[in-house]
Amino acid sequence: MNKYIRLAQGNGGQENNELIQKVFYKAFKNEILEKNEDAAIIHDGELAFSTDSFTVSPLFFAGADIGKLAVCGTCNDLAMMGAKPKYLTCSVVIEEGFAVSDLKSIVRSMKEELEINGAIVVGGDTKVVPKGSVDKIFINTTGIGEIIKKGISSNNITTEDLILVNRDIGCHGATIFVAREEIEMSSSLKSDCASLYPQVKALIDADIKITALRDATRGGVSAVLNEWAKQSDICIEVQELKLPISDEVRGICEILGFEPSELANEGTFVLAIKKEDATRAVEILKRFENSSKACIIAKVTHKNKQRVILNSLWGTSRFLDTPSGELLPRIC
Amino acid sequence: MNKYIRLAQGNGGQENNELIQKVFYKAFKNEILEKNEDAAIIHDGELAFSTDSFTVSPLFFAGADIGKLAVCGTCNDLAMMGAKPKYLTCSVVIEEGFAVSDLKSIVRSMKEELEINGAIVVGGDTKVVPKGSVDKIFINTTGIGEIIKKGISSNNITTEDLILVNRDIGCHGATIFVAREEIEMSSSLKSDCASLYPQVKALIDADIKITALRDATRGGVSAVLNEWAKQSDICIEVQELKLPISDEVRGICEILGFEPSELANEGTFVLAIKKEDATRAVEILKRFENSSKACIIAKVTHKNKQRVILNSLWGTSRFLDTPSGELLPRIC
Repeated sequence: MNKYIRLAQGNGGQENNELIQKVFYKAFKNEILEKNEDAAIIHDGELAFSTDSFTVSPLFFAGADIGKLAVCGTCNDLAMMGAKPKYLTCSVVIEEGFAVSDLKSIVRSMKEELEINGAIVVGGDTKVVPKGSVDKIFINTTGIGEIIKKGISSNNITTEDLILVNRDIGCHGATIFVAREEIEMSSSLKSDCASLYPQVKALIDADIKITALRDATRGGVSAVLNEWAKQSDICIEVQELKLPISDEVRGICEILGFEPSELANEGTFVLAIKKEDATRAVEILKRFENSSKACIIAKVTHKNKQRVILNSLWGTSRFLDTPSGELLPRIC
Repeated sequence: MNKYIRLAQGNGGQENNELIQKVFYKAFKNEILEKNEDAAIIHDGELAFSTDSFTVSPLFFAGADIGKLAVCGTCNDLAMMGAKPKYLTCSVVIEEGFAVSDLKSIVRSMKEELEINGAIVVGGDTKVVPKGSVDKIFINTTGIGEIIKKGISSNNITTEDLILVNRDIGCHGATIFVAREEIEMSSSLKSDCASLYPQVKALIDADIKITALRDATRGGVSAVLNEWAKQSDICIEVQELKLPISDEVRGICEILGFEPSELANEGTFVLAIKKEDATRAVEILKRFENSSKACIIAKVTHKNKQRVILNSLWGTSRFLDTPSGELLPRIC
């Protein structure tokens, strides 16, 4: 590792993983932390526990704001472990001079999103720092969820599973890029930011055989698939044509030089579902407005263990690697 | 409230309380949040849950660093509710260019302090933001504790209680001031930053009748006593002479123009103990190295309800109010 922290070390990809492993996991080593996927499983497997700090810039963007993001982000992490979000803490660091009206809008967004999850904020912390010590406002939310479906884990994916996504990918990353560069676009592009618990609950209620779930935030779908391939010692073969990508996102990726599958999402999740239930899972997801493009995107094989392969329409194939480099900082 | 957030709104005193009430509590209103003292009590009264974001400047100071502070702060909040700290999350926002060696020192301090509490970090989040978006590093820790003594609450203090502190007050605030102003002092002044769970456990193990506990962080002992006077609808009469204050802290307060009782602490707590157990509680506290000056500082009366009175050596008395104004920003 370099002597100084680089932006790439917060990318949700390779460099980020290295920093976490070499500094944090090394010092804090324990069994629960090692098993942590999107949230820690504690209290005899009854509860899920997860934290996230939000530093997104700009604070308000098409489809959401930092407040909505802060609730969705943490609640989604809990939902991905089969937990119902219950209790959240909310800790803010505010820059001196920040507009109270903006703070109130942000808190209102949080409140609305909490209701969708049936969760409540039970504690918080409010720090105000001198101008220049923080850019506007950072929010940490940490949540506790009650596990309603045990055993969901990305260590257990096998060739008996199919890999799904609930919607078209990359909208959050593309939206933030457009907002930050102040690109004028007459498009319907907006962040996918949404609470996923209702969809997870619907799958659980319908007794869908869920192997693993993961929201594809920083590092996008690529990061998730690569992590899963390693954790379960499998090969994931993605059918490029099946990957739902909107024209707007595809266009912005051409400008950015990114893969849509590396762009961050905030209401998009990847699912590993037992083959016999995959079609039914897609049908259930499609009932939700923002998941009308839910589909199966990949199969699990033994072709190249611990790797993700992207099979193109023309019969060619290439590896899809864990994202690396700077990507977009302050995406969430 | 003004249109723009002011530094005073993060002071742990009056303006801070107003911001929390009018913006956060108003939106997030619920029964658990309303009862939140130092931590929320959840899961049928079994667990305590508390969050804190740390923005202290400088990061390293006499007696501690931001890492030790981040673990003590959250673990102490749990301990104050009679809980044994168990699980923590650790979420960091790091400025691009921050020295990896400093990050490693901070994480090492966290690890050491976790061991004192018998707690573990089970999850985290690592964000890196561009230079200028945050001043060096901010850390959020959020913790879950297992309640080992139920019913500790600052709503139940009566004239049957005496008020204690475990040590001389104001060391943390004074230390940060000295460090920031680069005052050369040949003194032994250092932050009181310490984990309080061992002391709380010793009191519980000895069956001391504890009514309330509170660590006197931002806003100091004054903020705690005023909050307690309001919550329990009592008058707290402090014997000024009894308040343990070191010569160094007294000297710095003269420079700063602060009351020692308004200075922040990070390992100092106020206790409301039933009269018959107060002396025994002092004896138990004194067994701990950093609590050799533990003593009774106040009695509870009905003289001026919801107010704190400071009785001087010369028989005069005055009100000790909830601190207001800017105090010291970025103290924790």
